[in-house]
Amino acid sequence: MPPVISIVSKKNSGKTTLLEKLIPALCQRGYRVGTIKHDHHGFEIDREGKDTWRHKQAGARTVVISSPRRIAMIKEVDEEVSLDRIVRHYFADMDLVITEGYKKERKPQIEVFRKKAHETPLHSKAAPGTLVAVVSDVPVDLGVPRFDIDDFLSLAAFIEERFLGAHLPP
Amino acid sequence: MPPVISIVSKKNSGKTTLLEKLIPALCQRGYRVGTIKHDHHGFEIDREGKDTWRHKQAGARTVVISSPRRIAMIKEVDEEVSLDRIVRHYFADMDLVITEGYKKERKPQIEVFRKKAHETPLHSKAAPGTLVAVVSDVPVDLGVPRFDIDDFLSLAAFIEERFLGAHLPP
Repeated sequence: MPPVISIVSKKNSGKTTLLEKLIPALCQRGYRVGTIKHDHHGFEIDREGKDTWRHKQAGARTVVISSPRRIAMIKEVDEEVSLDRIVRHYFADMDLVITEGYKKERKPQIEVFRKKAHETPLHSKAAPGTLVAVVSDVPVDLGVPRFDIDDFLSLAAFIEERFLGAHLPP
Repeated sequence: MPPVISIVSKKNSGKTTLLEKLIPALCQRGYRVGTIKHDHHGFEIDREGKDTWRHKQAGARTVVISSPRRIAMIKEVDEEVSLDRIVRHYFADMDLVITEGYKKERKPQIEVFRKKAHETPLHSKAAPGTLVAVVSDVPVDLGVPRFDIDDFLSLAAFIEERFLGAHLPP
């Protein structure tokens, strides 16, 4: 099983924006990165009118489309699949899995805190829980390493050292 | 492993249109039906601007989105995943898998033949191969049961009896 890290925050703090910078930085280091987005409400994926979309509309419970370069699946489920099961089943060939959300799952968490978006962070220094780092636009002490919101290269190096067994040069 | 049937035809003979009628007929009989679309060229799925789309654009090799009712995955692969592996990995919880395409995979095949679209069918009576039925808009003898293109209920009953172990009333 690859290591799993969760990017968490209060609402609209820019988790996806951070991921858009962090993922390429990790890819450039040669790691195969997978991501999991937690959706509470129900999502739409696929494009109206496509064959797979038509299969699904007709009642197929699981739809897969497979090509030489890519495979995709949409599956109806009776209950939410646990994070561990998702990682085991879909991410065995990855080096690292980053989740967007899943703050209740107690994986090592990196909080994104933007003072512009919220007054206080999700985590507190008194109860850091599984927090391993904070990424913020202002200085904040949560008792864990802090990275500036734009310093995703240092964050990538931190993740590499901490979760991917790499050793930084002295 | 659930049974697998392939819907095959020459180009643009209405495989998806048939599936749109066949799938609900099988669902109404209480079966969990999954489908696999074979894509030769490369497909796009997901919607521009969505978080999952942004993860993929950033370089994530595998992206999953999970909600209480549905889970979806998009994965880059180095080589095409075999049909058997797809079925084993993604369809273990289905009663029946229907593929659209995969005519080279030698699963039991149902050919869709529309005289309006092509002069001759894909299969011939002399070399039926794995053909188990033909669905057509004109009478055609391929040495296997033939169903009219609009008689998807009889086709569903045939599939049920032949592949799902059901016994039709005498």
